[in-house]
Amino acid sequence: MTDLSSCEGACAPVPAPDWIAVDWGTSALRAWAMGRDGRIHARAASGAGMGSLSRAEFEPALIALIGPWLETAAAPVPVIACGMVGARQGWQEAPYRSVPCAPLAGALARIAPQDPRFTMAVVPGLCQARPADVMRGEETQIAGFLVAEPEFDGTLCLPGTHTKWVHVSAGEIVSFQTCMTGETFALLSRHSVLRHSMPGEDWDGAAFADAVTDAMTAPQRFSARLFALRAETLLAGLVPGAARARLSGLLIGMELAATKPYWLGRDVVIVGAPGLAPLYAAALAGAGVAARTAASDGITLAGLARAWQGERR
Amino acid sequence: MTDLSSCEGACAPVPAPDWIAVDWGTSALRAWAMGRDGRIHARAASGAGMGSLSRAEFEPALIALIGPWLETAAAPVPVIACGMVGARQGWQEAPYRSVPCAPLAGALARIAPQDPRFTMAVVPGLCQARPADVMRGEETQIAGFLVAEPEFDGTLCLPGTHTKWVHVSAGEIVSFQTCMTGETFALLSRHSVLRHSMPGEDWDGAAFADAVTDAMTAPQRFSARLFALRAETLLAGLVPGAARARLSGLLIGMELAATKPYWLGRDVVIVGAPGLAPLYAAALAGAGVAARTAASDGITLAGLARAWQGERR
Repeated sequence: MTDLSSCEGACAPVPAPDWIAVDWGTSALRAWAMGRDGRIHARAASGAGMGSLSRAEFEPALIALIGPWLETAAAPVPVIACGMVGARQGWQEAPYRSVPCAPLAGALARIAPQDPRFTMAVVPGLCQARPADVMRGEETQIAGFLVAEPEFDGTLCLPGTHTKWVHVSAGEIVSFQTCMTGETFALLSRHSVLRHSMPGEDWDGAAFADAVTDAMTAPQRFSARLFALRAETLLAGLVPGAARARLSGLLIGMELAATKPYWLGRDVVIVGAPGLAPLYAAALAGAGVAARTAASDGITLAGLARAWQGERR
Repeated sequence: MTDLSSCEGACAPVPAPDWIAVDWGTSALRAWAMGRDGRIHARAASGAGMGSLSRAEFEPALIALIGPWLETAAAPVPVIACGMVGARQGWQEAPYRSVPCAPLAGALARIAPQDPRFTMAVVPGLCQARPADVMRGEETQIAGFLVAEPEFDGTLCLPGTHTKWVHVSAGEIVSFQTCMTGETFALLSRHSVLRHSMPGEDWDGAAFADAVTDAMTAPQRFSARLFALRAETLLAGLVPGAARARLSGLLIGMELAATKPYWLGRDVVIVGAPGLAPLYAAALAGAGVAARTAASDGITLAGLARAWQGERR
C-alpha cells in the first residue's frame, strides 16, 4: 500500500523533531522533520496519496514515513498537515472555510491518531459559494507565498491537474476559479482517439501559441477543433509534437477565455509546476499579460510553518 | 480472440448466400447472409472489432463468424464490408474519397483473403480537406438513408462516440463535421474527478436543457463550468442525475455552438443511436430547431445492399 521507494533519509533514526510538516495530496505524501530552529532535520516522501488509501490506511501510511522520527521523542510530536488528507474521502473531513478570508484564518482541524507518539492538525480547505468552488492544499501554498510577499495584490495562478486562479488582496483570498485543464489534457492525450496523433513528448511552441489564440478568439469552435487533430494527422501529415501542443493550446486557451476577470489588467504571478508554468506564461504573454513566475519549491513548507506558528500563539 | 457470444443463428449451416454484408466497426463486427431475393438468410455478430485486432487476426475473425455460411457455396461468395476494417489500423487501408461526392461514388477497395471461399470488397471512407475531417462507415449509413429519401436536402446528424454532422444535397455529401462529444463525455464522467459527482444512471432533463443553453450562450465559460459540478456536489448537494445531465448538456451545447452552420435554418434529421438521438433532439429543440429522428436500424444494411448493386452493374 505504501510506496517507500522515494524515502529520502527517513529510514534512519534522527533527533526528535520539534514538529512535523506534512503535504498530503491526492497522489503523494511528503513530510519534513522540523527543528526548533526552523531548520529541516529530515525529509521523506511516498506515493501513499489520498487517492490510493482507504480511511483505515491513512495512519499506517503516515507512520511508515515518519515513524523513525518519533522513536526518540519524549512527548507527542505535533504534525501539521495540508491537502486532500482533509477531504471527504480523506482521513477525516476538515470543514471548509468560506472566502473571502486569509488563507490560514481560523483554527486547524484536529484528527486523533491511535498512535500516542504524535498529535495531528489539518489546515482546512477553502470554499466559495458562487460560483461554487473548493480548494485543499493551495491555501497553504498561498499562505507560503504571502510570507515572502505579504503586500501582494493581484492574481496567483497555480497550474496543475486542477489549476487554480486566485484573486488575492490585503492578505486575503477574495475569490478563486478552478479549471480541470490538466486532467482533461491527460485524458484526451492518453485515452481518446487523439492519442494516436501524439505519441512521444515532442512539442511545437508555435503550434501551441496559435491554438491558444484560436481558442480564445473563437471558443464556440472548440468542439470542432478536437477531432481535426486526428484528421490532420491522417490527411495532412500533422506531426505528433504539433498535435500535442495544439491540444494543450486549445485547452489552455479555453481556460484563459473562462478566467479573463482573473488576469485582465491584473498583476499575475504563476506559482510553481516547472513543466506547466512556462506554458501558462507563454499563453498569457500571447494575451498581452506579462506574468511573473515564482518558484513553488518551499512555499508549501513555508505555509505549513506559518500554520504551526499560529498554533503556538 | 473472437467473441461469438452473440452469434445469432450463424452456427448451423445455411443455404449458400448470394453475398454477405459486413459492418466492421471499432468495437463490433456484424454480418448478414443475403439471399438472391434480397432477404436476410442469417445474421451474426461478435465483439471482434477493428480496435481489438492485429492485421493478421482480421481474416480468422471474419471466418469465425461467416464460416458456416461458406460451407455449401459452389463459388466464392462476395463479401461487401464497410467501417474501420478499411482504416490504416484495419485489415487493409481503403483510401479515402474526397467530398463533395455521392456517399458510394467510385469503386470499392479490394482485399484478397487467403481463404478461397470468399472475395472481399470494402466501401472507402470519405475525407474533407478543409476543415480536415474523415469518416468510415457513416458514408454507408448515409447511402442507406438516401435509399429511402433520395431527394433529401439538409443535414444528417449521426450521434455516437464521434458524432457526424453531414450536409447532404442532390444525392451528394457536400461537407461534414466530426465532434468527439461522446468520447469526451465517457472520459470525463468515468475517469475524471467528476466521476465522484455522477454515479449511477439518473438523469435530470431540465438540468440538461439549461446546460445546453448555458454552453451555447457563453461557450467562453466552458472551462469554468466543469469543476463547478464537483464543487456543487460538495457544497450544495448537487445530485448525481443533475450533475450527469449537466455535463452532457455542456458538451452537447458546445457541439451545437461549433456546428451552427449545419443546423441553423436547415432541415435536420437525427439518424440512429436510441440512447443519444433524444438528447440531440432535445438540445436542438432548445435552439429552436425541430429535428426529425430516423431509425438507424437497417440503414447500414441498406447502404451495403446499394454498394452490392453497384458492384453487379
